[in-house]
Amino acid sequence: MSRTPAHDAPRRLHLNVNILHSGFVPSAWRLEHADPHAFVDVGHYVRVAQIAEAGKLDAVFLADNAAIVDQIDFRPITALEPTVLLASIAAGTTHIGVIGTASTSYNEPYNIARRFATLDHVSRGRAGWNVVTTADLASARNFGRDAVPDHAERYARAAEFTEVVKALWDSWEDDAFVGDKEGGRFVDVAKVHPVAHRGRYFSVQGPLNLPRSPQGYPVLVQAGGSADGRDLAARYAEAVFSASQSFEESAAYRRDLNTRAAAYGRHGGVKVLAGLTTIIGATEADALRRRDELVDRIPWRYSLNRLAGTLGIDADRLKLDAPLPEDLALPGGGNGNHTFFHATIAQARRHGYTVRELIRSLAGGTGHRVVVGTPEQVADDIEHWFNGGAADGFNLMPDALPDGLGDFVDGVVPILQKRGLFRTEYEGTTLREHFGLARPDNAQWWRKSA
Amino acid sequence: MSRTPAHDAPRRLHLNVNILHSGFVPSAWRLEHADPHAFVDVGHYVRVAQIAEAGKLDAVFLADNAAIVDQIDFRPITALEPTVLLASIAAGTTHIGVIGTASTSYNEPYNIARRFATLDHVSRGRAGWNVVTTADLASARNFGRDAVPDHAERYARAAEFTEVVKALWDSWEDDAFVGDKEGGRFVDVAKVHPVAHRGRYFSVQGPLNLPRSPQGYPVLVQAGGSADGRDLAARYAEAVFSASQSFEESAAYRRDLNTRAAAYGRHGGVKVLAGLTTIIGATEADALRRRDELVDRIPWRYSLNRLAGTLGIDADRLKLDAPLPEDLALPGGGNGNHTFFHATIAQARRHGYTVRELIRSLAGGTGHRVVVGTPEQVADDIEHWFNGGAADGFNLMPDALPDGLGDFVDGVVPILQKRGLFRTEYEGTTLREHFGLARPDNAQWWRKSA
Repeated sequence: MSRTPAHDAPRRLHLNVNILHSGFVPSAWRLEHADPHAFVDVGHYVRVAQIAEAGKLDAVFLADNAAIVDQIDFRPITALEPTVLLASIAAGTTHIGVIGTASTSYNEPYNIARRFATLDHVSRGRAGWNVVTTADLASARNFGRDAVPDHAERYARAAEFTEVVKALWDSWEDDAFVGDKEGGRFVDVAKVHPVAHRGRYFSVQGPLNLPRSPQGYPVLVQAGGSADGRDLAARYAEAVFSASQSFEESAAYRRDLNTRAAAYGRHGGVKVLAGLTTIIGATEADALRRRDELVDRIPWRYSLNRLAGTLGIDADRLKLDAPLPEDLALPGGGNGNHTFFHATIAQARRHGYTVRELIRSLAGGTGHRVVVGTPEQVADDIEHWFNGGAADGFNLMPDALPDGLGDFVDGVVPILQKRGLFRTEYEGTTLREHFGLARPDNAQWWRKSA
Repeated sequence: MSRTPAHDAPRRLHLNVNILHSGFVPSAWRLEHADPHAFVDVGHYVRVAQIAEAGKLDAVFLADNAAIVDQIDFRPITALEPTVLLASIAAGTTHIGVIGTASTSYNEPYNIARRFATLDHVSRGRAGWNVVTTADLASARNFGRDAVPDHAERYARAAEFTEVVKALWDSWEDDAFVGDKEGGRFVDVAKVHPVAHRGRYFSVQGPLNLPRSPQGYPVLVQAGGSADGRDLAARYAEAVFSASQSFEESAAYRRDLNTRAAAYGRHGGVKVLAGLTTIIGATEADALRRRDELVDRIPWRYSLNRLAGTLGIDADRLKLDAPLPEDLALPGGGNGNHTFFHATIAQARRHGYTVRELIRSLAGGTGHRVVVGTPEQVADDIEHWFNGGAADGFNLMPDALPDGLGDFVDGVVPILQKRGLFRTEYEGTTLREHFGLARPDNAQWWRKSA
C-alpha cells in the first residue's frame, strides 16, 4: 500500500502557498512597500518561503509557463524556471515542501524524471511535481508548433509521459545502492532495471541515472478541471489544485475525483487543495478597503483583456456595466483552460454580476475564489470548507507578497491551530509526511517483464 | 565590444574545479574518510564548492550525462541534474561561478535558455552553460532514438541550438523592464522582441519569458576536441575545457582555436582551461604512494572496460602487459569522443606504455592529464603551462573530493598567489568578472528585422 487510508487517521488540513511573484492581484507590485523587481529576485521567493515555513505550511508551489501569457506591460509574470528556483528555496528552508510545475507537452520524460528526482535529493525529500499540459499558442510556437495540440492529444501524451516518469523513478530498487568500500561494490546492477518503454509518444530505454529519491518519488500533483484532466488526476495525482467558486461545486468536484480514483483502484483519497486568494484586514472594512485599493490600481484595459482571454472572446464584447455575453463557449474547440473558463462564468452567473462587479470580485484574477475579511472570517471560511468536505486544504494565493502571506501566517494560522485544525509543529521532514502520504514502495514492474 | 581584448590587461590564470562526485579517480569513494553516498548528497557538493570559494577559484563545473554511461557496479556516476544542483550550490556560496553542462542533442532551446537564465538570476550573475552534444547510444535510447545521430548532424543541431538560445537571451532589451509603480507600467513591450526563428532543427517564436540576466547572458563554455567541436567553440565559446596530454598539444590546440575564433571575427581570445587531475602529497613519494593506493583499489576489469570503451574496441583485445593495439580508429565512424580517444592514444604512444602502465598513468580515467607531486611541483607545472601559452587556466579534477581539493587550496593556491599568478581576493561578484569578460551588450538583432 502506498497510501494511508483516510479512515486510519483524522483528516488533516493542508495549506500551500502559491508564490505568484508579487502576489495574486495584478497590481500587487504597485503597493508602497512592494519591490517591482521581486518577480526575478531569488531573495523575495526565499523570504516568502521562510514566512510560510514559520507558519508550518505544507509546501510552496510554483506555477509555470513556457511563454509570455499575460500582459507584461501591466504586471509581473511567471518568469524564473521552477525547478531551479525551488532548489534555491530548498536551500533557504528546512521543512517546507517545494512543488514545481512542469509541462508534459514540451519536455521529455527522462529529463523531467531526472530534474524532479534531483530536486527531491537536494531538498532531502521535499519535492513535488505539478503535472500540466500546455494549451496556449504562444508556448506551442516556442517549441516548433504552429498550433496547439488538441485537448485529447495533450492528455494522452500527459498520461504516457507520467507513466514513463514513474517507471524511471522506480527503475532502481531501494537497496540497489550498496556502497561497500571493502568489497569494492558500489551498486548492485541486478537491482537497476531498464524501463524499455515503447509507446505512442515516447520510447525510453532507461534506467534513470540516479538512485531512488528520499521520498521514493516526488509527490505527484495535478490541476486539471476538464474530464480528461480529472481522469489524469484520478490515475496519478496524490494532491490536486482546484479552482471552485462555491462550496457545493468544490464538494462535488472532490466526490467526483475520488470516485474516479477509486475506479483506478486508488482508495486512499486524492487531496483536494482549493485555490484561495485572501485579502486580510484587521476589520472587515479594512480588508474591503485593501481590496478596493488593489483593484483600483489595475487598469481596466488589463482586466478586460484578461477576462476576454479566459472566455475566448474579443475584449470589445465585454461592457463594464452589462452582464457577460450569453453565448460563451470554451475557446478553441475545447482547448481553453476548462477550470478558469467555467469557474469565472459560474461566479458571474451566481451573483448576477456585471462585468465590472465580476472583475472586482475576482480581484483582477480569473476563476480563483477570493475571500476578503478579518483573520477570523478567513479561518471560518477555511474551517467550513474543510469540515464540510469541500476541500482537504488550500493552495493559498495571497493578494500581495510577502505581506499578504505574513498577515495569513500571523493572523489566520494561530486561529486554525487553536481550533485544532492545523499543525503547530512539523511532524516530519518530507512533503509526503506533511501530506500524510506513505513513502511508496518500488512498483516492481520489472518482475512482470522478468 | 563584448570582450576585453587580451592586450589591454595582463593575462590572468583561471581555475575551476570539476566536481566529479567523489573525485576523478574511480576508487575515490573507497578512501577511509569518503562517504559513498556523496554522489547524491547535496551537502557534499556545497562543501566542495565552499572549499573552492575559500581558494578564490573562478567556478565550479558540473559534467552531465543523460544515461548511465559508466560501470556503476564499481564506481559513482554523474547522477544529479546540474542546473538544479548548481542552484543549491549557488545558495551556499557568494562569489564562485557555477557552470553546468546541458546537451543540445536532447533538449529544447527555449527550455535551456530559460533554465540557465534562471540560474544566472538566482546566482546573481554566476552562471555558465557548457554546451555539449551527446554521442552515446544509451542516451539516444532514453530519447526515442535507436541510434546516435551522426557527428555532423549533432554539431549542426548544436550550432543552431546555441544561436536560438543566444537570441532568446537577447530578446529583452536591457532597459525593457520599467517597474513604474506610479504610472502603472511594468515592462516596455516595445523593447521585448520575438525571435521568430525558423531553422532546420528548430522553430522558436520567442521572446523569452524573463528579462535579461545579471551577466547579460550566462558564460558560454564548450569542450569539443573534434574539428566540428573546435568550430563550435570558435563561434560561440568564451571558455573551453580541453584535454591535452602534452604542453605542445595544448599550445597547438589553443593557437588553432584562437585562429578559428578570429576567422569568426572574435579577436579577444577564447580561454583554454585544460583538464588537470592532481594527486598531491607532502613529498613526491607521498604523492606517488597516494596515487598507487588509489589506483590499486580500482578493479582491473573496470579499467580495461573503460579504456576499451574510449577506444571503441572489445576489452579482450587489451592485454595488460602489451602496448595498445595498432589498428585503432575513432569509434562508430566518427561518433566517439574525439577528445578522449586521441588524448589517450597520445599518452600511450609518447611514453611507450603498456596497457597496465597507461591505466596507471591515467589514474583510472581516460584522456585527462594527471600530475602527481608536491604542491610546489603542481604549482610549477601550472606556471609552466600558463606562462608558456599552453593554457589560460585549468579545469581541476582532484583525485578525491573534498580532500584532494582541500590539498590544492591549502597547498598549491598560496604558492600561485605568492608568485603573482592567481588572485588573492575576488575582484567582482560575477563569473564574467572572474573570467575578465565584459557583460555583453544586447545583440540588437531585432534592428535587422525591423
